[in-house]
Amino acid sequence: MRIALDAMGGDNSPAVPVRGGVEALQHLESDFELLLVGDPGAIEEELEGQGIPGDRLRIIPASGVIGMGDAPVESVRRKPDSSIVRGVQLQESGEADAFVSAGSTGAIVAASTLILGSMPGMDRPAIGALLPTTAARPTLMVDAGANVDCKPEQLEEFAHLGHVYMQDVEGRQGPKVGLLNICAEPDKGNELTLEAYRLLERSGLNFIGNVEGRYFVTGVCDVLVCDGFVGNVVLKSYESVAEQVAHLVSRTAAGTEDYVDLLAVCRVLDYAEHGGAPLLGANGVTIICHGDSPARAIRNAVRVAARSVESGMVEHLRRELSSLASARA
Amino acid sequence: MRIALDAMGGDNSPAVPVRGGVEALQHLESDFELLLVGDPGAIEEELEGQGIPGDRLRIIPASGVIGMGDAPVESVRRKPDSSIVRGVQLQESGEADAFVSAGSTGAIVAASTLILGSMPGMDRPAIGALLPTTAARPTLMVDAGANVDCKPEQLEEFAHLGHVYMQDVEGRQGPKVGLLNICAEPDKGNELTLEAYRLLERSGLNFIGNVEGRYFVTGVCDVLVCDGFVGNVVLKSYESVAEQVAHLVSRTAAGTEDYVDLLAVCRVLDYAEHGGAPLLGANGVTIICHGDSPARAIRNAVRVAARSVESGMVEHLRRELSSLASARA
Repeated sequence: MRIALDAMGGDNSPAVPVRGGVEALQHLESDFELLLVGDPGAIEEELEGQGIPGDRLRIIPASGVIGMGDAPVESVRRKPDSSIVRGVQLQESGEADAFVSAGSTGAIVAASTLILGSMPGMDRPAIGALLPTTAARPTLMVDAGANVDCKPEQLEEFAHLGHVYMQDVEGRQGPKVGLLNICAEPDKGNELTLEAYRLLERSGLNFIGNVEGRYFVTGVCDVLVCDGFVGNVVLKSYESVAEQVAHLVSRTAAGTEDYVDLLAVCRVLDYAEHGGAPLLGANGVTIICHGDSPARAIRNAVRVAARSVESGMVEHLRRELSSLASARA
Repeated sequence: MRIALDAMGGDNSPAVPVRGGVEALQHLESDFELLLVGDPGAIEEELEGQGIPGDRLRIIPASGVIGMGDAPVESVRRKPDSSIVRGVQLQESGEADAFVSAGSTGAIVAASTLILGSMPGMDRPAIGALLPTTAARPTLMVDAGANVDCKPEQLEEFAHLGHVYMQDVEGRQGPKVGLLNICAEPDKGNELTLEAYRLLERSGLNFIGNVEGRYFVTGVCDVLVCDGFVGNVVLKSYESVAEQVAHLVSRTAAGTEDYVDLLAVCRVLDYAEHGGAPLLGANGVTIICHGDSPARAIRNAVRVAARSVESGMVEHLRRELSSLASARA
């Protein structure tokens, strides 16, 4: 298995992605190969003295970088030699099975959609984000930001995508699907969620109904369905609150005996633990990491990519969407 | 000034509302009177032995209670003698200047809208929620849940309502208004926020542009504008994350010397500090509290109600909306 990793993506590239990739290499099976995509000189400098098995690591040269502020679709077209475009292309050409990047989310989504294409029946892929919960296992939110204006049918598609991902990659059988809403009652919500509720009820999925903002953090469902606008705003505020509290706590407790315990507590709500966010519904495996991901998050994202490939997730997603399309016809 | 307080609303009524009301009475000016609305026998039992100045406290009998699960509009019509309906009516009849309740949010909004009416130009009042921030002063989110499907014009109205509230009640001059969105760029967002951005730019308010989910917790704006679906979901998840972290922290640190410090840290993100949520755009002062509000939150909500009345907020809101309507015509 070959995983391509964007060595130029993220706030501290190439140092952090290279370190995270090397850590993944050390922990994964021996048939696993890592392709580091980016500036060869800079990557080699980072690798120096790390004693990596050379036969399991290759550098794929790429010369441009797409910045966080660049317009996604335009920059994908204008920078064909950027690490993001090159990395995604490696799947199309059969040289890699998956791509991991901490670069611009918009550009990663655009490159994956344009180069790999969306699965039949999908308007556009969705982003799945693993939300840490206090129940020790994360909840997958779909969509976390790729589709900002959604039809009810799209929310139903997100539910199916999440269902397959949680079965294949997280090993959950019959994952519980919840619809993010303002109330628990089926007859409450906005126009979008009222109609999506009716579709999900008949979807054949393990639909547990509406889930309020106050409950998902306790892990009541495995898959949390919402439109990408709501998902993005909730995800970012969630992370921010958790980070701020962790920061305040560590400031107060630093130097005390309880410091280590407190850090462990904060880790319960630490997204880096769960690696990156899968792009679901494109014809390939793409894992998107935070721009400020530490090496640990990159390592975990590479592992998630490997599990996605091993489980045959892409084929399962395609079959699931195809059944959905047949049921609708 | 007379503030009516729903003695029957909330999880621990009448004990908690009565205690919170009495605490407010002890701290506010001597011209302040409290009207406790509810079951006289139960209220008197709670008041026993508390040595309250009888001339500043009155009991207004009400016999029914609207439950959290009851359909709001129907229950307001079917239970005219409930504490919520009676409490709101006291403003209409001129017997009270404001109403505070920890009962069903839906019923409080419905009763205020039906009995007091919406201000001219408003489809429906909006809920303003004070979000604690790490900047030591809260941000007002409007709308936090009353309007789940919004037009861009409504978001502009919410901005004006929040502007007046933060000036009058929180004493902020030229409050900064932000639009909750997925990106900072003006040309990003969903259909609703793209159009609302254009309206807010020309609104004459101190509009600082889009605010992402990750930034509002640091207090970058005084007023955070969003539709009620997004607002409700973000507010509830925000509170939930903060509560869960606080819970985890207190479990880890209980019994240590740092415990008290840690509790103080958690209080930075404690909504009870800031009292209730004002209903904005109805012809009166209505403050909505959490069902699980402690007495401190009720006390703070009564103070907020008093400041709203003193400042002439209702008249200022009406003028602001009237200017907006003229500008649009």
